[in-house]
Amino acid sequence: MDSGRLLLFSLSLALVSRAFSDSLIRITPDRRSSTKLSRDDVLFCDSWRFTVETNDAGVWVSVPDRCVQWVKDYMTGDRYRSDSEFAADDSLSFAKTVQIAGDGKDVWVFDIDETLLSNLPYYAAHGFGSEAFDDSTFDEWVNLAEAPALQASLRLYREVEQLGFKIVLITGRIEPQRNVTEKNLVYAGYSNWERLFLRGRADSGKTALVYKSEKRRELEDEGYRIHGSSGDQWSDLLGFAIARRSFKLPNPMYYIP
Amino acid sequence: MDSGRLLLFSLSLALVSRAFSDSLIRITPDRRSSTKLSRDDVLFCDSWRFTVETNDAGVWVSVPDRCVQWVKDYMTGDRYRSDSEFAADDSLSFAKTVQIAGDGKDVWVFDIDETLLSNLPYYAAHGFGSEAFDDSTFDEWVNLAEAPALQASLRLYREVEQLGFKIVLITGRIEPQRNVTEKNLVYAGYSNWERLFLRGRADSGKTALVYKSEKRRELEDEGYRIHGSSGDQWSDLLGFAIARRSFKLPNPMYYIP
Repeated sequence: MDSGRLLLFSLSLALVSRAFSDSLIRITPDRRSSTKLSRDDVLFCDSWRFTVETNDAGVWVSVPDRCVQWVKDYMTGDRYRSDSEFAADDSLSFAKTVQIAGDGKDVWVFDIDETLLSNLPYYAAHGFGSEAFDDSTFDEWVNLAEAPALQASLRLYREVEQLGFKIVLITGRIEPQRNVTEKNLVYAGYSNWERLFLRGRADSGKTALVYKSEKRRELEDEGYRIHGSSGDQWSDLLGFAIARRSFKLPNPMYYIP
Repeated sequence: MDSGRLLLFSLSLALVSRAFSDSLIRITPDRRSSTKLSRDDVLFCDSWRFTVETNDAGVWVSVPDRCVQWVKDYMTGDRYRSDSEFAADDSLSFAKTVQIAGDGKDVWVFDIDETLLSNLPYYAAHGFGSEAFDDSTFDEWVNLAEAPALQASLRLYREVEQLGFKIVLITGRIEPQRNVTEKNLVYAGYSNWERLFLRGRADSGKTALVYKSEKRRELEDEGYRIHGSSGDQWSDLLGFAIARRSFKLPNPMYYIP
């Protein structure tokens, strides 16, 4: 969500009509796939997905044609939810081992899109990662502030907060989207974050990897100890000033460098 | 393969009889699983595997009971081969973009076990990662020097060598295993590596992550440029002096810190 978006930095973002919103958020229930994938396609797409989630694939631009149905099935069936729950469970297991100092400096970092908030309603209407990313319609979706919580992450968020972590959000969204982002977070059930970083003008043109590393470094320089970090992109997790433990959430729909 | 093994550092390792070897390397052909996994088990094991391959799981000791059959099916069916091929393809795509300087300092690093060599014959006879690791029988297997090549890696190895990379091997195996390891590599089709690092006495007690990072640092200090690194464990790839690009090969059978 980071790169192309920056071009729109100075555009004012008008709220779209409710009618338009309704057309965006309709998802087809899809527990059983309408198109049955061949055994070869499943093998291919499972392996493609392995390389995406391990970061072996490196930069990739869109879901391969033959995997669009696979990604749709994955995202709208049980697997996405299950993988997200497993990642949250691992995160919580680690979080429980952290000794909280009580000085308010123990931090857990969360990304927002496809981490705290799910844009699945948008991507369901836009080919599940098979279409070229379109800043304009995505920004309209963001302005609706109606993205639902990723339920596993909401549970984790509440539990790490309960454990005494300060919660810091670092998103590739830009400063003009601060208000709608906060509104959406509250709508989805999140509250009490310590800090919300969005891209400012000075971050323009930086990769997410560099921008997010710099924000973590700022936190460290202020004395915060970053124990855990949760994100659906490797650029949320790698770079410098990395957390003691990083947790990769699933996302076979898009890649951000 | 790294930790417990060190205890045996000074033991002399006798060659085992051919009869014993035969009992080790028998794998049951298993294209169709004998035990059919339930839908819930598949969902569970797919997600467990996601957390293992992304490193979300962190330290794990053995394959969960309900996933032993899943791992057996995965390792002996098409998926392991397919995932390995995809990882090799990604590696080669990157390798082809590297400008080789011609000074003999451009390096690709490979791990050995479950990267260049497959110990699947051993693990097939030992529960596919469900049994506690046993140094004694594994060392007997190593001494046979009959581990087959992981075919995708053999192809990659030959192609990166052809491209002009120097090949460096960094393994958790120990110095007393140098001869059998070289013998096995040659047996499996590998040749012309620039350097083979095994754990020496000074590396005793170090995690693989630290030991392997130190060896990469040594290479850097000698002026080598480490472009790519291939390994089945995150401890092959992370730490310091990391390669420009790292490639995680699949391994749902065991974890090495």
